[in-house]
Amino acid sequence: MILPDPQAQIELTEDLVVALCDRRRGLGADGVLRVATAGSLVAEQVLERLPEGVSGVDWFMDYRNADGSIAEMCGNGVRVFAHYCRTEGLVDTDAFTVGSRAGARPVTVHSADDADADVSVSMGPVALRGPSEVRIAGTTLTGEAVDVGNPHLACVVDGLTPERLAALDFTTGAELDSALFPDGANVEILTPLTPGGPTPADEADFHAHMRVFERGVGETRSCGTGLVAAAAAALSGAGRDSGSVAVTVPGGDVLVTVGDGSAVLRGPSRLVARGRLVAGWAD
Amino acid sequence: MILPDPQAQIELTEDLVVALCDRRRGLGADGVLRVATAGSLVAEQVLERLPEGVSGVDWFMDYRNADGSIAEMCGNGVRVFAHYCRTEGLVDTDAFTVGSRAGARPVTVHSADDADADVSVSMGPVALRGPSEVRIAGTTLTGEAVDVGNPHLACVVDGLTPERLAALDFTTGAELDSALFPDGANVEILTPLTPGGPTPADEADFHAHMRVFERGVGETRSCGTGLVAAAAAALSGAGRDSGSVAVTVPGGDVLVTVGDGSAVLRGPSRLVARGRLVAGWAD
Repeated sequence: MILPDPQAQIELTEDLVVALCDRRRGLGADGVLRVATAGSLVAEQVLERLPEGVSGVDWFMDYRNADGSIAEMCGNGVRVFAHYCRTEGLVDTDAFTVGSRAGARPVTVHSADDADADVSVSMGPVALRGPSEVRIAGTTLTGEAVDVGNPHLACVVDGLTPERLAALDFTTGAELDSALFPDGANVEILTPLTPGGPTPADEADFHAHMRVFERGVGETRSCGTGLVAAAAAALSGAGRDSGSVAVTVPGGDVLVTVGDGSAVLRGPSRLVARGRLVAGWAD
Repeated sequence: MILPDPQAQIELTEDLVVALCDRRRGLGADGVLRVATAGSLVAEQVLERLPEGVSGVDWFMDYRNADGSIAEMCGNGVRVFAHYCRTEGLVDTDAFTVGSRAGARPVTVHSADDADADVSVSMGPVALRGPSEVRIAGTTLTGEAVDVGNPHLACVVDGLTPERLAALDFTTGAELDSALFPDGANVEILTPLTPGGPTPADEADFHAHMRVFERGVGETRSCGTGLVAAAAAALSGAGRDSGSVAVTVPGGDVLVTVGDGSAVLRGPSRLVARGRLVAGWAD
């Protein structure tokens, strides 16, 4: 849910976020993306200071999880955020900076109308940390530990087909090396790279299918940082430190481009509805 | 989700309902309540004919479950439907008839603003069918079979406190007498009646706490016909064939008034937000 509040005048308490995201009593959402200028969030003491690379006039993605807690970044959310800023006329250029608690995120809106957009976001540095194992879906898999600001274990499984990937049972959870991952990690499982693949720009070097198991959540339809971690690990496994990978996740198709130790995530955004909350709804 | 479509011009296919109710890709809802005149639904061949007691100019609640299937009636939904009709000026009186596939439902809007309303709906006939048993929450309970257009087993449990009711584990399902309930039934479990209770009008004879287990669904926060069945069974157990019962369910407080073999359900309605779907969202 995108919540426009340019001057950060809404007291966005944990209770209010929970009420907004409640799928029975509220409007229902996985999280709230407040749209406010970075400067106004500092002035209202929501932020202590401007994060590195973010200026006071930049639009800041004040991201809250459905439970009211703060999340630093959301690679899929920032595309929707950028789409909204562009189509509502909050910015008048296709390339601009979105502020986040993880720092500045340069975005490019390749195309946008009221409903749909194609957006790229620079996801920052990607660091490979070496091999590790995970016990998941009734088997032990070897993967590459990847740091994308948060910890991942990305497992490219030899001979795995999209059909067998789709049939894996993730309900029993994931057991990681707790010495390497003291705070847990997201686990990505993907098919080996094949040439080409479906992308918004039809330009990928490789294609893979992926599913993701997020720590503290379980399986999700997509995970922006997980897509980046998986693409970097798969390219590395193919002997490359750069390239582009089209990744098909349950939530859709995205394109990850890795180079110079950082990554760009490109994919679709769709705005479903626009409306106003009724006064008094949260009383 | 209330979908205003006065002249029934929207082709409300199963796929469209599923897309609207999808909590990830759509707006998200338990179901869709289309607002159309009964006459236009007949003209557009959504209805074969006007149900008994419904005239062509009445507003008709064209109810669809989240899976796209048709439901005949929803006792809680009809309050929200009536609230919407009144506050949007579709009717200019507080007492009017809402059409449903189960027939005409007379409603009274006692008070209403943009956000909140207090609404009564006549729920039609209630018939007690005698005792039966259910295996649920690790125990066997005796209840009263009740027909409110759909089948129920309402169990008043001696000595059950609100705290112990709240602690019951419904996750293991309900085993009913399949001879008496060949198509299953909703199961209501409630505390013994106590005098008075919280109601919109402060006029109840009795009060009870209740939880409900719906066939094919599992536990829900409330069930309009279940509330009526439970109140009728509890009054009967207290040797009365009429009276009013304030019932507290996880979803809130309602008032059921039983008399002459029929019942009126009174309770709150809240409209959370108003908006427009973005063109192209369902492509």
